[in-house]
Amino acid sequence: MAAPPVSPLAPKMLPTLPPIPGVRFAAHAAGIRYKVRSDLMVAVMDPGTTAGGVLTRSLTASAPVESCRAHLKSGSGRVLVVNAGNANTFTGRQGVADVEATCKTAATVFGCKPSEVFVSSTGTIGVPLPVEKILDSLPVVRGKLAADAWMEAAKAIMTTDTFPKVATRTATIDGLSVTINGFCKGSGMIAPDMATMLAYVFTDAALSAEAVQALIADGANKSFNCLTVDSDTSTSDTLLMFATGQARHPQITAANDPRLADFKAKLDDLLIELAQLVARDGEGATKFVEVRVTGAEHDAGAKRIALSIANSPLVKTAIAGEDANWGRIVMAVGKAGERADRDKLKIAVGGTLITNDGAPVPNYDETPVVGHMKGQDIVLEVDVGIGSGKATVWTCDLTHGYIDINGSYRT
Amino acid sequence: MAAPPVSPLAPKMLPTLPPIPGVRFAAHAAGIRYKVRSDLMVAVMDPGTTAGGVLTRSLTASAPVESCRAHLKSGSGRVLVVNAGNANTFTGRQGVADVEATCKTAATVFGCKPSEVFVSSTGTIGVPLPVEKILDSLPVVRGKLAADAWMEAAKAIMTTDTFPKVATRTATIDGLSVTINGFCKGSGMIAPDMATMLAYVFTDAALSAEAVQALIADGANKSFNCLTVDSDTSTSDTLLMFATGQARHPQITAANDPRLADFKAKLDDLLIELAQLVARDGEGATKFVEVRVTGAEHDAGAKRIALSIANSPLVKTAIAGEDANWGRIVMAVGKAGERADRDKLKIAVGGTLITNDGAPVPNYDETPVVGHMKGQDIVLEVDVGIGSGKATVWTCDLTHGYIDINGSYRT
Repeated sequence: MAAPPVSPLAPKMLPTLPPIPGVRFAAHAAGIRYKVRSDLMVAVMDPGTTAGGVLTRSLTASAPVESCRAHLKSGSGRVLVVNAGNANTFTGRQGVADVEATCKTAATVFGCKPSEVFVSSTGTIGVPLPVEKILDSLPVVRGKLAADAWMEAAKAIMTTDTFPKVATRTATIDGLSVTINGFCKGSGMIAPDMATMLAYVFTDAALSAEAVQALIADGANKSFNCLTVDSDTSTSDTLLMFATGQARHPQITAANDPRLADFKAKLDDLLIELAQLVARDGEGATKFVEVRVTGAEHDAGAKRIALSIANSPLVKTAIAGEDANWGRIVMAVGKAGERADRDKLKIAVGGTLITNDGAPVPNYDETPVVGHMKGQDIVLEVDVGIGSGKATVWTCDLTHGYIDINGSYRT
Repeated sequence: MAAPPVSPLAPKMLPTLPPIPGVRFAAHAAGIRYKVRSDLMVAVMDPGTTAGGVLTRSLTASAPVESCRAHLKSGSGRVLVVNAGNANTFTGRQGVADVEATCKTAATVFGCKPSEVFVSSTGTIGVPLPVEKILDSLPVVRGKLAADAWMEAAKAIMTTDTFPKVATRTATIDGLSVTINGFCKGSGMIAPDMATMLAYVFTDAALSAEAVQALIADGANKSFNCLTVDSDTSTSDTLLMFATGQARHPQITAANDPRLADFKAKLDDLLIELAQLVARDGEGATKFVEVRVTGAEHDAGAKRIALSIANSPLVKTAIAGEDANWGRIVMAVGKAGERADRDKLKIAVGGTLITNDGAPVPNYDETPVVGHMKGQDIVLEVDVGIGSGKATVWTCDLTHGYIDINGSYRT
């Protein structure tokens, strides 16, 4: 398959991520699936690094996901090994043994315990992992580690992604400046339930493992869990955060410590940026879509309605066709199974109110809406007229490109 | 929009439906939306006809759906008025008044009570219904009623359908032969929760309204509720059944009467045929897909897993690409939220076992599966290894045709 062109929704410029004391990276062409690009990414963190994360709720989760879930219990993270091109999912006992071998070899090469190694795999499901290529690469990778290899790392984990997804923030803790960097991959099979495909966040802040876990779980709910490309939840969804603790403030042990207020805000912001980048690189995407639902019974109900709209093939194909077919939004509200008052429903597209009190507004002029639909960033607002629950969800349109990419992924 | 070509999955021959004593039809070009075809269908039933039906669970249901729900309480059905091209959905108070006017005028023209009139509308959402065109047509239609106009009736209710969907069965009650005829429309926005777009069943059997209601509700669960084209539930889903009672057996008042055993089997069979015809005319469909799930905790769980597979855009695009990408079936089982044992999962495509005990079968030969995927009727079988729950669901593939049709439906 020829590489698809870069998404028209890709950012015009990618930020340069500053080094974070205590983390180094290397990307390597291990030949796992791709021939002419890096497909193995290794991050090595200094001793004392705490780790937290959230993983897919899929009942057919991959062997690496189950290993991460077990290793998160220690709260300590020293090595991250990620390969692209093979998901090591539904590979039976051999798949589990391959993850164990990777952890053991990485522990020997980089000098830590196997339980401090986190492994992720992304790519085709059901194909045995050529694990020797990973094991043989680890000593080579050790000689290539660098503190500034963020972009190489972000590129090495891509599959159908058309651009690397990176973000950075600076936050203040106790008067001290700390850095938060993150990168992720994801384009199709995106409807995260706990996290999305693969996303990694690093900081030099000094945080207990419990604080890292609480911060990342809360942030995931506001970011990756508000994202859908195609309603299909991956077997490999993984979001991990590592805090090296090399910033010189005293370690903070509770996520709700007031000194973390700015850090938490910046972390949430970074996670939202990464999640939106996934929607902007949705398979075949030509429009980025924000769905804002208000007036629901509660926030969870608002989110279910927002996802019902964002996942509707009829809404998504209408957006691809630049057609403000708001009747399909009415349909998607109706099928969500959440309380909504049809006779109070308000729908606005691009800020223009189209319906009010259960019917089109008098003398509705479609002109500004038609103009909005021709743009790249589409905003759909729905008030369901029941209560004060609200939610925002991000997605993209459904185009011929999605069919092209997914009719022939394996071949 | 140019009319799309007839679905490649359309039946090669359509059956001729015999007359049913007590029912007459007319189709009429009322000019509601379409210029050169019938878009109004009226069925008139003799006095004594009982009625039952199931309607969408959508919370943004149309005005005609709400009227049908109210009129079903009487259990008596004399007139059915169906228009295509305008859904009379989300049309506010005017939409409700338009349905009431239609019932009142039809009652006057055909000599019955307004509560014995059933109205359905299908087409664009949110556009006021040009109700005068319907009211003015009713006296004209009265002069055109015929007992053999089944095909004209089935054609008049089509929207994006590429062929009329009709079916017939003969059943025996108490030694007497009775007829069951049905027709329906539906192609997109198909994920019935109680019924599908519009489907109507007629019989000359003598059945109490309670028996009709119980028979059609049970039959809907085995047929239309096992159907999805695109996971989008319509605001207009309606399945109605009318029993004229002109067959000369004594009226049967309970659906579980042993004398109805053959009738019930034939009715279920007819409903399944109609439901499958909708999948065979799914927007853009090139493959008919049957998903059979076994080994679930219970039947409801099996159905949720089957629908998760049948609604997955990644499974559906792979089928369109003739790619037996069974890893996506694993994914869809995992995201369904129902109990499944990943390590006992069995997947077969076209009868060929691909996975067993949570991994591909040894020496899996893809050759017969590749051949099956090139055909038009695809069978996916999944055993999730937990219990004895089972379900079968029908759908179609997701192709460029779906995007073409739905990017420009309103224009």
